[in-house]
Amino acid sequence: MAQNIYDKPEFFEGYSQLSRSVHGLDGAAEWDSIRAVLPDLPGKRVVDLGCGFGWFARFAASQGAASVLGLDLSENMIARARRETADETVQYRIADLDRLDLPEASFDLAYSSLAFHYVEDFARLVATTHAALVAGGDFVFTIEHPIYMAPTTPMWTTDGDGRRIWPLDGYSREGKRTTDWLARGVVKYHRTIGTTLNTLIGAGFAIRHVEEWRPSGEQLRDHPEWAEETDRPMFLLIAAQR
Amino acid sequence: MAQNIYDKPEFFEGYSQLSRSVHGLDGAAEWDSIRAVLPDLPGKRVVDLGCGFGWFARFAASQGAASVLGLDLSENMIARARRETADETVQYRIADLDRLDLPEASFDLAYSSLAFHYVEDFARLVATTHAALVAGGDFVFTIEHPIYMAPTTPMWTTDGDGRRIWPLDGYSREGKRTTDWLARGVVKYHRTIGTTLNTLIGAGFAIRHVEEWRPSGEQLRDHPEWAEETDRPMFLLIAAQR
Repeated sequence: MAQNIYDKPEFFEGYSQLSRSVHGLDGAAEWDSIRAVLPDLPGKRVVDLGCGFGWFARFAASQGAASVLGLDLSENMIARARRETADETVQYRIADLDRLDLPEASFDLAYSSLAFHYVEDFARLVATTHAALVAGGDFVFTIEHPIYMAPTTPMWTTDGDGRRIWPLDGYSREGKRTTDWLARGVVKYHRTIGTTLNTLIGAGFAIRHVEEWRPSGEQLRDHPEWAEETDRPMFLLIAAQR
Repeated sequence: MAQNIYDKPEFFEGYSQLSRSVHGLDGAAEWDSIRAVLPDLPGKRVVDLGCGFGWFARFAASQGAASVLGLDLSENMIARARRETADETVQYRIADLDRLDLPEASFDLAYSSLAFHYVEDFARLVATTHAALVAGGDFVFTIEHPIYMAPTTPMWTTDGDGRRIWPLDGYSREGKRTTDWLARGVVKYHRTIGTTLNTLIGAGFAIRHVEEWRPSGEQLRDHPEWAEETDRPMFLLIAAQR
């Protein structure tokens, strides 16, 4: 069972103050990249795996999705998502992605934003998602990039010349990583890009797009402090098709 | 035009002393991983892009390939390859992968080992290779891993606790990298995994396997000094299909 870190009060409070929690999709630096690989949404049946406050669920509904099912482990997040959603095409349900159960061939799009790195059994999740999609259905998700996840000490440091470096180690040693981010003892699961892609391919998905997110030139003009994001990628975006 | 580093005397001499130059395919740590994703070879028409001393070309012929065309920019390497190859199904030719020209739909397998990171125009090479393969043909290649290529100073260092770290920077800044390896001023071209995969997908290839090479348990028992290879991957192996 995945750790329910989002219902720890200090984590929930910290997460609620992030730009993406206050401003929604437009507050997420990687949103433009995600949107560029999303399929057309009108008439689509969508499932959002790790829906959080429901920003994407409401977006999908506003774009004409026929139905949106938002799933999340956090009672706090589902409660806020329900409060902020008036559209009846959107439904929310509490669910553990490590024990996910979905009806077969029932969705046209499975979407997930920054949730799968909390999932221990990724192969099970991928097989369940593959079965839940119709033939030709899309699977679009982001995770923390494994370069970001892997290190013993995932924080910028400097080399002997004072140059900012990302202290990579343990990249090929997959498995649990425990870090302190918003709360102590946040448990994540590191997998290489190779493992992530081969798991998708092995389940029957075709890989459509792989993006190691970096800020655009426009974003760097608006946020010069994001320059460090070009030294190591923080997010990995994958689009696949059943 | 790609830099012809292999014909610099000090580079060629150093390269000739590497395990993979002395012992051939079995002297290359990543060979078992490559072999696991190769298609059956009997009857196949094979092109080896950057064939070096011809180890793989002779292997493919010994496995029953119908024909093998080995291409390399280095006159020294092609000369040695010809000297060491008796099999008439193998032909060698000097060629620059940045200006590659191949007949259309003429090969069942395009293979390349650790050559494409010297190529500036990867998209052109991939399009040419796609056109040269028959439908269903295989494309199997290795490159230096972009994590290995990217840094300003691609050498192990230690953090404040004395832990071995790989000083990653510049991962998202693609383009030329000049390093000193066997000779001064070796020019390579850094591309992210995302760019490499999207270039293949965009040309019409289906991605079959992506492996960020790490030593096996058996290899670590035989070569304990390879433990550092689990801290950052040195090679990237990709199998794709037209």
